[in-house]
Amino acid sequence: MMAAAPGHPVLSKLQFAPFSSALDVGFWHELTQKKLNEYRLDEGPKDIKGYYCNGDSAGLPARLTLEFSAFDMSAPTPAHCCPAIGTLYNTNTLEAFKAADKKLLLEQAADEIWESIKSGAALENPVLLNKFLLLTFADLKKYHFYYWFCSPALCLPESIPLIQGPEGLDHRFSPKQIQALQRAYDDLCQTEGVPALPYFLIKYDENTVLVSLLKHYSDFFQGQRTKVTVGVYDPCNLAQYPGWPLRNFLVLAAHRWSSSFQSVEVLCFRDRTMQGVRDVAHSIIFEVKLPEMAFSPDCPKAVGWEKNQKGGMGPRMVNLSECMDPKRLAESSVDLNLKLMCWRLVPTLDLDKVVSAKCLLLGAGTLGCNVARTLMGWGVRHITFVDNAKISYSNPVRQPLYEFEDCLAGGKPKALAAADRLQKIFPGVNARGFSMSIPMPGHPVNFSSVTLEQARRDVEQLEQLIESHDVVFLLMDTRESRWLPAVIAASKRKLVINAALGFDTFVVMRHGLKKPKQQGAGDLRPSHPVAPADLLGSSLFANIPGYKLGCYFCNDVVAPGDSTRDRTLDQQCTVSRPGLAMIAGALAVELMVSVLQHPEGGYAIASSSDDRMNEPPTSLGLVPHQVLDQYEQEGFNFLEKVFNSSHSFLEDLTGLTLLHQETQAAENKHQ
Amino acid sequence: MMAAAPGHPVLSKLQFAPFSSALDVGFWHELTQKKLNEYRLDEGPKDIKGYYCNGDSAGLPARLTLEFSAFDMSAPTPAHCCPAIGTLYNTNTLEAFKAADKKLLLEQAADEIWESIKSGAALENPVLLNKFLLLTFADLKKYHFYYWFCSPALCLPESIPLIQGPEGLDHRFSPKQIQALQRAYDDLCQTEGVPALPYFLIKYDENTVLVSLLKHYSDFFQGQRTKVTVGVYDPCNLAQYPGWPLRNFLVLAAHRWSSSFQSVEVLCFRDRTMQGVRDVAHSIIFEVKLPEMAFSPDCPKAVGWEKNQKGGMGPRMVNLSECMDPKRLAESSVDLNLKLMCWRLVPTLDLDKVVSAKCLLLGAGTLGCNVARTLMGWGVRHITFVDNAKISYSNPVRQPLYEFEDCLAGGKPKALAAADRLQKIFPGVNARGFSMSIPMPGHPVNFSSVTLEQARRDVEQLEQLIESHDVVFLLMDTRESRWLPAVIAASKRKLVINAALGFDTFVVMRHGLKKPKQQGAGDLRPSHPVAPADLLGSSLFANIPGYKLGCYFCNDVVAPGDSTRDRTLDQQCTVSRPGLAMIAGALAVELMVSVLQHPEGGYAIASSSDDRMNEPPTSLGLVPHQVLDQYEQEGFNFLEKVFNSSHSFLEDLTGLTLLHQETQAAENKHQ
Repeated sequence: MMAAAPGHPVLSKLQFAPFSSALDVGFWHELTQKKLNEYRLDEGPKDIKGYYCNGDSAGLPARLTLEFSAFDMSAPTPAHCCPAIGTLYNTNTLEAFKAADKKLLLEQAADEIWESIKSGAALENPVLLNKFLLLTFADLKKYHFYYWFCSPALCLPESIPLIQGPEGLDHRFSPKQIQALQRAYDDLCQTEGVPALPYFLIKYDENTVLVSLLKHYSDFFQGQRTKVTVGVYDPCNLAQYPGWPLRNFLVLAAHRWSSSFQSVEVLCFRDRTMQGVRDVAHSIIFEVKLPEMAFSPDCPKAVGWEKNQKGGMGPRMVNLSECMDPKRLAESSVDLNLKLMCWRLVPTLDLDKVVSAKCLLLGAGTLGCNVARTLMGWGVRHITFVDNAKISYSNPVRQPLYEFEDCLAGGKPKALAAADRLQKIFPGVNARGFSMSIPMPGHPVNFSSVTLEQARRDVEQLEQLIESHDVVFLLMDTRESRWLPAVIAASKRKLVINAALGFDTFVVMRHGLKKPKQQGAGDLRPSHPVAPADLLGSSLFANIPGYKLGCYFCNDVVAPGDSTRDRTLDQQCTVSRPGLAMIAGALAVELMVSVLQHPEGGYAIASSSDDRMNEPPTSLGLVPHQVLDQYEQEGFNFLEKVFNSSHSFLEDLTGLTLLHQETQAAENKHQ
Repeated sequence: MMAAAPGHPVLSKLQFAPFSSALDVGFWHELTQKKLNEYRLDEGPKDIKGYYCNGDSAGLPARLTLEFSAFDMSAPTPAHCCPAIGTLYNTNTLEAFKAADKKLLLEQAADEIWESIKSGAALENPVLLNKFLLLTFADLKKYHFYYWFCSPALCLPESIPLIQGPEGLDHRFSPKQIQALQRAYDDLCQTEGVPALPYFLIKYDENTVLVSLLKHYSDFFQGQRTKVTVGVYDPCNLAQYPGWPLRNFLVLAAHRWSSSFQSVEVLCFRDRTMQGVRDVAHSIIFEVKLPEMAFSPDCPKAVGWEKNQKGGMGPRMVNLSECMDPKRLAESSVDLNLKLMCWRLVPTLDLDKVVSAKCLLLGAGTLGCNVARTLMGWGVRHITFVDNAKISYSNPVRQPLYEFEDCLAGGKPKALAAADRLQKIFPGVNARGFSMSIPMPGHPVNFSSVTLEQARRDVEQLEQLIESHDVVFLLMDTRESRWLPAVIAASKRKLVINAALGFDTFVVMRHGLKKPKQQGAGDLRPSHPVAPADLLGSSLFANIPGYKLGCYFCNDVVAPGDSTRDRTLDQQCTVSRPGLAMIAGALAVELMVSVLQHPEGGYAIASSSDDRMNEPPTSLGLVPHQVLDQYEQEGFNFLEKVFNSSHSFLEDLTGLTLLHQETQAAENKHQ
């Protein structure tokens, strides 16, 4: 600051109330979304938009507000508010946040403002004077947001002496003049089609008040001799101080007008409505000496980084984990880890395909629980369990959705308890359980009408469930219980993932997905034009397309029947190394995810990274789907025969009987 | 039945009250243990032992009791009770139970009894007359026990006409005679050293009562003309009927004595103590005609299968799941699946080594939760968690010990919540949690005394925890946090299992277990004599013994330092395919189990089923353990330097700095 020249009276110096940044929860939420889905690791500057108003009650600080809409540069500014354009620097790490060169950032912003003043761009578009910076680091694991706000203000070469005022506008203007000012300002806003004018020019006498845009200053001020009057849309409430927006404007005025005028009269336009009555009389007005700046070529130094809550120079932090709805917080937290995969590791990952997959889990035992857990980890929101068992005491240590208490009083039904547990783990999941039996080949349904009726209802229920899901997991503990859902799912062209455990072996496989019944007729899956070579059956040295893959039963030479009868305890329980179910369950879900990520989904070719898969498929050719044909033709009547017959019915149908007979005949011949 | 011969009066026929089987909960419990641990799949006959008494209050059925001790043939029979020897047929399946040939079993037992009568063995050892059969199926998944009890009774060729009685003993004997009977019986029991005599011979007149053993019958009955008197220890309470044990004895009597005597007088000896007063006066006495059987060579037909609760011929079922203590039920249920592994699949599996392993889990995140779950599946009872984090909203869907509610109000400490959850899953587990930090290289401990003191306490706590456990799992999310526990565990010769995740890669490894510091000095591990070839370092074409294996840090060319600073969000979180942690967690536990099953435990050779492991180990030789030496010499002083220094301290110590310099020098030379 320079000392006043000797001989002149020492005038008081003008001081300015800085902006307080007001960063809404909506702003942080939207930043989170942008960071996760769009910016990811990009630390480059981003345009954002805030606003400020001049109608606040006394006592409130002058706020520059950023909310949800800050990232949409075309979003309208709220009524009676002035827009402010800013630049966001969102860093990837707290270290980068701390290390950011704040001096440089400020200088760059100041330069831009200075250039807009010199070029006259700021006269055409005064919003350029109200630039701001926002440096952020979003710790999305903890919902801690670190930020440092800056509203760059160019400094005049010397402090600004007050010639008169500040005083209330009602001390200087008559009510008539005030009313005229108000009307003139409103008219100009309306003409310009803007909610507010940050800066404007004023001419007044006892009877009239005229206002105009900055860019018309030469015409408007023509004939003016020593003093001009300007209006500043002022977010400040203080009677003695103008708000921050005046600072850069005074630099513009000094640069533009100090050669013509010695002083400028400033009307800090404050415009509030209290109890329905509009009031601008509390605006303040004062006159300052304009510093000589007309020929300065260099950008003045600038200030503007906001102080923190303790009043020192430093960043602020908001902890949103405490004020967010916990359930919403859980949802976005769950998405976090998933979205992080897309940042760097698998940018092409289409998470929606996974998250939106409706999964039907047939079996809520060891495999079912582990599959459900892994699906939750992948963000799958729609999980349905089918199981007819109750939770027994040996289950909780191996079936990770159950606890000791679930076993008491005979045990809760697994399907319902599993669904309840998923809700407890993550309230955002849509989990349901159906405690029902799956009819099985060789497990007769009684011919008393009630039990046959029950089997019919169970089949219908299962058909409906499979119809309303996208992926069917076969996770039961017998071979034959997989049969009916495999048939129905094949008929409905649903992706089937099958997992089964041995002691230290397991199988995790997908079933082939047959081509749509009527191509293009209401089926949204991609149609697959059949190349001529394709019609020849298994083409040599080619990978196998998804629609030619078989199912769990295709390789069997014994049809499924009752495998639970006459089993010893160690054959009844799936005796398995305890770690195996977790491995198989996890792999089943990873297989589903991989298939879903394939552009052809369930029709994805069965390929492998090595060349072994390029060998010709088995010379036995593909297993014909007699069962599927029969099911689609006869429906429950066919199923009833299957449930009530022993192996022989299915073996006759599929030609296995014939195969056995032929094999037998061939053997006899050789003996 | 034969019609009475004409001209003779029709006498009433003697009838017998059958045994009621009384199978105690303790019997089923012990059967469960035998089945799980000893019989397994063996369905062969097993000797068991029951007993019956003759002192019950009126109204109680005549019971043959089997309790806990039934499987111990040398267990003493309770005071005043008669033993009964039986054969247990425990089937593996309900189908085998139902299909058992009960007619054949009964015939076989009857044959044995008949043979003991014919041979005279039953005279020497009358217990042979009270044989019983028990056919069982134990559904240990549901704690349902199916059983069918049989007390085989040989049938006389015709029904037995009552000549006199039955009537109360006090109608026939004077108080003096009764007292004499009592004294004579007691004296004989004492002489024989048995708690009771099932059958005995009686001679009496008005003044004296004599008793003797069956085997002495020819001397005892010498001179007797038409009638003998026998005593039967009688479990029945009914005034008109004798209990079942008399039946086979009458066959013996008919076979042995019907040529000499026409009738036998039977004293059904009943001996109860009520309100401190002993009473045998309610015994009953009657006389029956002895059928002529002296020269029958063939075993008579037999009866004896017990009726069920409904009064029909059929098995009974007890459901113990409802009357067992749920927590104990949970414990035995959990053991069930494990023990089933030993029946057929891995008979040599030593479950105790696994179940008794005390496991310390460093890290209670994604890996920690999955490892704990798999340990529970293996029946491990002692699990301790160390973690300093709190549960956040993104955790529950991937960390299977937490739920949404655990995240509220800032989140519960993971270590404590994980331990609580284990208790909820299985109340029999001994789970603890320590919410504490693990000091790390390059994460300075402040030199203000408090924080240094805290680090010292943390190190001490960690040393104590590692000391008091058998297996240490490294399941943290940074490289450097694995350093200190790896060093301490190596120094304490504890098995270390390390698991770490990448995006779609993971490492699961064991650390080498150095040889005991002082062989035989309080260390219970097997000592390993060092063969001369061993001293030469890595022997060619040999697998690597456990004590020569390195640790997680042995292959690194950069010492661990602070890896968390300056990380972007996707580098901070372990971004990983959700299924991966389950796979790695499960494999880590399976690795521990496999190592524990090896006869040399942590010293097990690193081998593989294929031949690749037979190639010579790396020519770089084994990494020297400078760090371990230093830690063992300097303790916390050494650690303090590590925590507070950057990489360079550890790199200097381990020679990595030299290695880098030499590499650099070599590169420069070549340029």
